[in-house]
Amino acid sequence: MKTIGYAAHSADAVMAPFHFERRALRSNDVAIEILYCGVCHSDLHTVNGDWGPQPYPLVPGHEIVGVVTSVGPGVTRYKTGDKVAVGCMVDSCQHCDQCHHGEEQFCRVGMTPTYGAPDRIDGTTTQGGYSKHIVVREEFVLQIPDNMDLAKAAPILCAGITTYSPLRTWGVKKGSRVGVIGLGGLGHMAVKLAHAMGAEVTAISRSTSKEAESKAMGAKGILASSDPAAMAAAASSFDLIIDTAPVKHDVSVYAPLLDIDGTLVVVGQVGPLEELMSVPLVFGRRRIAGSLIGGIAETQEVLNFCAEHNVYPDCEMIRMDQINDAFRRLEKGDLAHRFVIDMSSLNLA
Amino acid sequence: MKTIGYAAHSADAVMAPFHFERRALRSNDVAIEILYCGVCHSDLHTVNGDWGPQPYPLVPGHEIVGVVTSVGPGVTRYKTGDKVAVGCMVDSCQHCDQCHHGEEQFCRVGMTPTYGAPDRIDGTTTQGGYSKHIVVREEFVLQIPDNMDLAKAAPILCAGITTYSPLRTWGVKKGSRVGVIGLGGLGHMAVKLAHAMGAEVTAISRSTSKEAESKAMGAKGILASSDPAAMAAAASSFDLIIDTAPVKHDVSVYAPLLDIDGTLVVVGQVGPLEELMSVPLVFGRRRIAGSLIGGIAETQEVLNFCAEHNVYPDCEMIRMDQINDAFRRLEKGDLAHRFVIDMSSLNLA
Repeated sequence: MKTIGYAAHSADAVMAPFHFERRALRSNDVAIEILYCGVCHSDLHTVNGDWGPQPYPLVPGHEIVGVVTSVGPGVTRYKTGDKVAVGCMVDSCQHCDQCHHGEEQFCRVGMTPTYGAPDRIDGTTTQGGYSKHIVVREEFVLQIPDNMDLAKAAPILCAGITTYSPLRTWGVKKGSRVGVIGLGGLGHMAVKLAHAMGAEVTAISRSTSKEAESKAMGAKGILASSDPAAMAAAASSFDLIIDTAPVKHDVSVYAPLLDIDGTLVVVGQVGPLEELMSVPLVFGRRRIAGSLIGGIAETQEVLNFCAEHNVYPDCEMIRMDQINDAFRRLEKGDLAHRFVIDMSSLNLA
Repeated sequence: MKTIGYAAHSADAVMAPFHFERRALRSNDVAIEILYCGVCHSDLHTVNGDWGPQPYPLVPGHEIVGVVTSVGPGVTRYKTGDKVAVGCMVDSCQHCDQCHHGEEQFCRVGMTPTYGAPDRIDGTTTQGGYSKHIVVREEFVLQIPDNMDLAKAAPILCAGITTYSPLRTWGVKKGSRVGVIGLGGLGHMAVKLAHAMGAEVTAISRSTSKEAESKAMGAKGILASSDPAAMAAAASSFDLIIDTAPVKHDVSVYAPLLDIDGTLVVVGQVGPLEELMSVPLVFGRRRIAGSLIGGIAETQEVLNFCAEHNVYPDCEMIRMDQINDAFRRLEKGDLAHRFVIDMSSLNLA
């Protein structure tokens, strides 16, 4: 199938229109016309080569919402016209213990990312959602609940599941005391999701300048990490902290905020953090952990949860041809929360 | 009560005989003649002032085994002649949530360490087990099981509980895959205890030079952290790692050894660790944690466990007047595993 997308043709190059082929449908494949695609900071890191050399030309995008246009003969779960979504993975071995219990993100053989990885069958490079169409095996296609706002749903596929999964893994429930470091794409979703689970949520930011904004998302207040007295007063007051800070930072200054047996989960920075001080860990049996997106079943769960609780990311809609400007603004942190590309702005012809 | 001990009279000073008074028995106090006291590296750190200024003269020692010589009128659990033990704490608030569920080490008001802290009632400085006698409230006195070898039991009170508690907290059971970093006082107890719980234990050390020794303790083998091929082959193969390395080190090189959802527990180094790499945490939902001794109930549990499973630390018995030499050897790492002071070598007169 002929399609069009926006691709990086080398590291640090501008994104430009790219005509390419989507594979002919295999028996268990679903062909999707993409309606919306979220812009994740990892898209920018990847095309810039920050995480290593890439197989250019590369079409990024792994927060995909669309409609089914056709299905392979073996597909049982979807039919033409269904509203569907695709997240950060498009395949995995399907046979290991992790795949069997629905955590394909930890597939022992390695899951196949939505873009920039070799397809498990034909070895061609997977290409992501900054494009008009995509073809994905049905096991990695998610269902969009009927009442969901399609235009705002895309970021749930990465920012949503990345924060929902640790909230579930660490058992957040009504009354849990949850801190959220950072109020960007991930952080604002963490606040909204934890609040919708009934948690008492505190935003943790450099200053209190985003207090009103954080309260509008459902936080009961904001804690300024630059205020030593406020930090000391908040010692041992959180069961869980979701740390979305996307740069090298010192988690040890946040660890004392955890109550005994509490956990700080790093989901923002994938790389080095500052020197780790063991004292707050030892004197409180506290934990520092990481978390990676979520499995397919849990990604369906967060979509259903968001539809049921009316939780949506704050989106700024852009046209496909605005992506280079959006990347520049993303680098500067100059956006509210999440860009979403309206794919109707991209024409195949 | 007049007694004698060995005290540090200033930071970095040699330990010297010190005559002092133990308090008259309060209603719930137990008076103990000390038979054995283990020598913990934290004794040396404390008297050296490594962890801050101390109230000299200071008698260290928190691995105490002895016999009851008298009890206050309100004591119900102990009588003269009972074999008993005292560990790292001698008091706590007894009213907070942590004390109520038996984790006095995390007392919200702060537990009272066995030496160098103000007594909660009269404000005098607590003095530890490098002495002939001690007086402790009965709630912080442990029972020595009948069949226990008194001469070898002392290190269970710190090295034992410090490693037993995380093995229990993180649910080690038959078949659990446990790694133990370091084979000193803490590490050799971790290997023995985990083996006695039915775990498959691997010692992790710089080289394989201690392989025979680690196998004698119950390890199935040793993994050399200096061997990149061996480390790569051991990726994702541990449910839990007990990290007893007592110096600043890089936990990130060990994190990939953990399986998905596995935890590395720091019990050796109380201070800075190297820069933390989040990648192995994120791509495996792995965790880095700390752990602090254990509560009184769990300390009794480890004493009972060791007696039942015939698990004892490897001890080198010394006389009280050999303590300065023992400290020098401890600083150089020149000992098998744990010094124990035979307190019959110290005379009150």
